[in-house]
Amino acid sequence: MEKDELIALRDQHEKELREHVLPFWEMHSGDVEHGGYFSCLDRVGRVYDQDKFTWLQARQVWMFSRAYNRIEARDSWLDMAELGIKFLDRHGQDPNGHYYFSFTREGVPLMAPYNIYSECFAALAWHEYDRARPSAYARSKAKEALDHFLTRRASPKGVWSKATSHRSLLSFGTSMMTAYLAYEMQELFLDGTVDKYYHECIQSIMEIHYDESLGVIREHVQLDGGYSDTMDGRLINPGHGLEAIWFLVDVVERIGQATLMSKLAEMAKRILDYSWDEVYGGIYYFMDAKGAPPQQLEHDQKLWWVHLEALIALSRLMIHVDDEVLEQWYRRVHNYAFARFPDHVHGEWYGYLNRRGEVHLNLKGGKWKGCFHVPRALLECTSNFNRLIEAD
Amino acid sequence: MEKDELIALRDQHEKELREHVLPFWEMHSGDVEHGGYFSCLDRVGRVYDQDKFTWLQARQVWMFSRAYNRIEARDSWLDMAELGIKFLDRHGQDPNGHYYFSFTREGVPLMAPYNIYSECFAALAWHEYDRARPSAYARSKAKEALDHFLTRRASPKGVWSKATSHRSLLSFGTSMMTAYLAYEMQELFLDGTVDKYYHECIQSIMEIHYDESLGVIREHVQLDGGYSDTMDGRLINPGHGLEAIWFLVDVVERIGQATLMSKLAEMAKRILDYSWDEVYGGIYYFMDAKGAPPQQLEHDQKLWWVHLEALIALSRLMIHVDDEVLEQWYRRVHNYAFARFPDHVHGEWYGYLNRRGEVHLNLKGGKWKGCFHVPRALLECTSNFNRLIEAD
Repeated sequence: MEKDELIALRDQHEKELREHVLPFWEMHSGDVEHGGYFSCLDRVGRVYDQDKFTWLQARQVWMFSRAYNRIEARDSWLDMAELGIKFLDRHGQDPNGHYYFSFTREGVPLMAPYNIYSECFAALAWHEYDRARPSAYARSKAKEALDHFLTRRASPKGVWSKATSHRSLLSFGTSMMTAYLAYEMQELFLDGTVDKYYHECIQSIMEIHYDESLGVIREHVQLDGGYSDTMDGRLINPGHGLEAIWFLVDVVERIGQATLMSKLAEMAKRILDYSWDEVYGGIYYFMDAKGAPPQQLEHDQKLWWVHLEALIALSRLMIHVDDEVLEQWYRRVHNYAFARFPDHVHGEWYGYLNRRGEVHLNLKGGKWKGCFHVPRALLECTSNFNRLIEAD
Repeated sequence: MEKDELIALRDQHEKELREHVLPFWEMHSGDVEHGGYFSCLDRVGRVYDQDKFTWLQARQVWMFSRAYNRIEARDSWLDMAELGIKFLDRHGQDPNGHYYFSFTREGVPLMAPYNIYSECFAALAWHEYDRARPSAYARSKAKEALDHFLTRRASPKGVWSKATSHRSLLSFGTSMMTAYLAYEMQELFLDGTVDKYYHECIQSIMEIHYDESLGVIREHVQLDGGYSDTMDGRLINPGHGLEAIWFLVDVVERIGQATLMSKLAEMAKRILDYSWDEVYGGIYYFMDAKGAPPQQLEHDQKLWWVHLEALIALSRLMIHVDDEVLEQWYRRVHNYAFARFPDHVHGEWYGYLNRRGEVHLNLKGGKWKGCFHVPRALLECTSNFNRLIEAD
C-alpha cells in the first residue's frame, strides 16, 4: 500500500474509536449505583435488560484499562475500568474461586461457572487493570484466574458437561485462547513454561486443527488429530480461525520464528477464499466442511466480530509479509465492514447483519456483544497501520 | 366455510401426507443395519450425518404407529415403527432408566439424559406403539417414561442445570407437554389423577402463562405467576402457544368445559395478531414481550412447525367455535405455508425459511427436525376437516 492509503486507514480507525465507539460505552454502560456495566443496550444506548455477564464485564474492564495504557492515561477511562473490576471482585467468584457466568444487576449469581472462558476474560481484565494501576492484589487475581483456566482446559465444562466420554474431541477454542493468554500475560507463567505453551499452540492450530486440503481451521478434531465426520467435526467458524491467526502472528514474532509468517498468511487467505459470500459479500458465520446443511440457523449471517478479526489479522500480516493479495483482501473486508456495521448516529457498531448485509438486530450490546471486539479491533488496526507507516 | 372448501382442504392434507411426506421417511430414514432412523437427511433424502437423537427416534416411532392406528394397518408402517422402538429399547436408557439425548449410529450414548422431553417423547412412542402391537412390556415402558417425566418436571435439567436457584421461573413447556401426555395417555394415570393434571394445565396455560393484556403466552413466569422483566421472562414463542392451544381444545372437549372454547379461540387470534409478520407474511419464531432486541439470532425466521401447529389449532377451533375470523386466519396461514414449505420434487417439507419466506436451510431433517410435525399436522388437519365436513 502507498503511504497515503496507510495514513488514511490509520486515521479512520483512530477516529472511529475515539469519536464513535468509546464514547458510546462511556455514556451508556456504567452502572454507578451497583457497579459493573450494563451490556444490554439498544441502538440508542438505552438499557433493555439489567443482567450482567462475566465475559462482558471482564472484557470491558480490559478494554478501558488498555485504552488507558495504550492511548492515553485519561482518568475517566481508569474510573470506567475500576467500576467493572470492583464488581467482579465483589461478586464474581464462587467459593472455589471460579467465575460465575452471569448475575443480576445487583450481583447475585444467576448462572454457575460452567464456562472456562469466564476465567480467561477475568484473567485478562485483572492483568490489564494491573498495568494501569499496579497492585500485588490485582496481579494475584490475574494469576489465580489464569491458573484456573489452564487447569480446567482439559475438562472445560466439568460437572456441567452433557457429553459422554465416547466422542472426545479436541476443541480449537482452548488452544486459541491459550495462545492469546500466553502472549498477553507471559510474565505470569512460571519461568520457562510459556515457551512450551507457545509451541503447543502453534502446533495445535497450524498442524492439528488446520486442514491443509480444505484450507480451513476445524473447530473440533479427534484426540489423535484425525478428522471426525460428525456435526462438531465438520464445523467451521471462519472468524475464529482468523482471530487465532493474529494471535499466532504475535506469538511467532515474539519467539522469532519468522519462517512461519508466510504459512499464516496462506492460512488467512485460504480461510477467506473459503468463507467469503460471493453473492452478497461478507464472511459466513458457520459452515460445514463437507457442505452439509449447518444446524446453526444463523450460519449465513454476517457478524461484526468476524469481520473485525479478519481486519486485524490481515493488517497484522501485512507488517510481516509483503503480498498484494493480503492487501486486496484487506480492502475488500474493510469496505464491506465500514459500509455496513458502524452507526454514526448513535455510536458503536451494529453486530448482526443478515446474509444480504442488512441490519438484522439493531442492538449495540447484549448477552454476547459488549465493549470489546469493536474497540479492540480499532485499536489493533490503528497500531498495525502505524507500524506499516513507520516501516514505509 | 362451504362444504366444497372443507372437502378440498381435507383432500389436500391427506394427499400431501400419503404422497409426499410419509413416503420420504419410508424411503430414506430407516437404518436396517443398526436399527432406528437417520434423521439428518438433506433435500433429496441423503444421509449427511449418522447420529441419532432420542426426540426424533421416539417421535418417528409415534408417527408410524399412529399412521398404522389411524390411517390404515399397513405392515410396512408397523415395521417402520418397530425399527425405532427396538433401537430405543436396546440403547435408549441409562442405568436409572432415563433416556439419553443422543447416540452414535450404532447406539453408543453421546449425550447424557439432561433433557426431560426425551422421556416425554419416549412415553408417547411406547404408548402409541402399544396401541398398534399391544404388550404388557410396551405398556410398562410407556408408564415408566411417563412417570419419569412427571417426576422430573420440577427440576427438568437436574444436575445439568447451570442456573442458580435465585431466579426460579415456571416454564410453559412442561405444562404444555403435560396437557398433551395427559390427553394422549390418560389410562396410564392412576385413577382420578388425570383430572387434576387437566385442570392444572388449563389454569397454568390460560391464566398464569397467558398475558391477557398483550394477548400472548409467556414462556416463563415467576413462581407466583408474576411477570419477570428478564430475557427469559419476556420471551414469546408464538408457535409454542398455538401448539398448546390445540392440546387444550382436546382437553377441554374431553372434560366437557365447552365454555372455555371461545377463550381459546380468542387466545389463538390474539397470538396470531401479535406474531404475524405484516411485511413478508408468516409467523415469527421468537419475540420479546417489550419489543427489546431478542437474543435469538434466528428470531425472525419462519419455521415449518410453527405454521403447522397454527393450522391444527385453527382448524381444531373451527370445529367448536363458529367464527369467521378463525377461518380467515386459517386460509392466511394455509396459503402462506403450502406455497413455501412443501417440496414436491423430493418430498417432505422444508423446515427453515428466512424472514422473506425463502428457503434458508434446505435440509429435510436434522438434529431438531424429523418425521413428526409435518405428518402429525397433516393427519390432525385431515381429521379436523373430516369432522367439519360431517358436522356440515
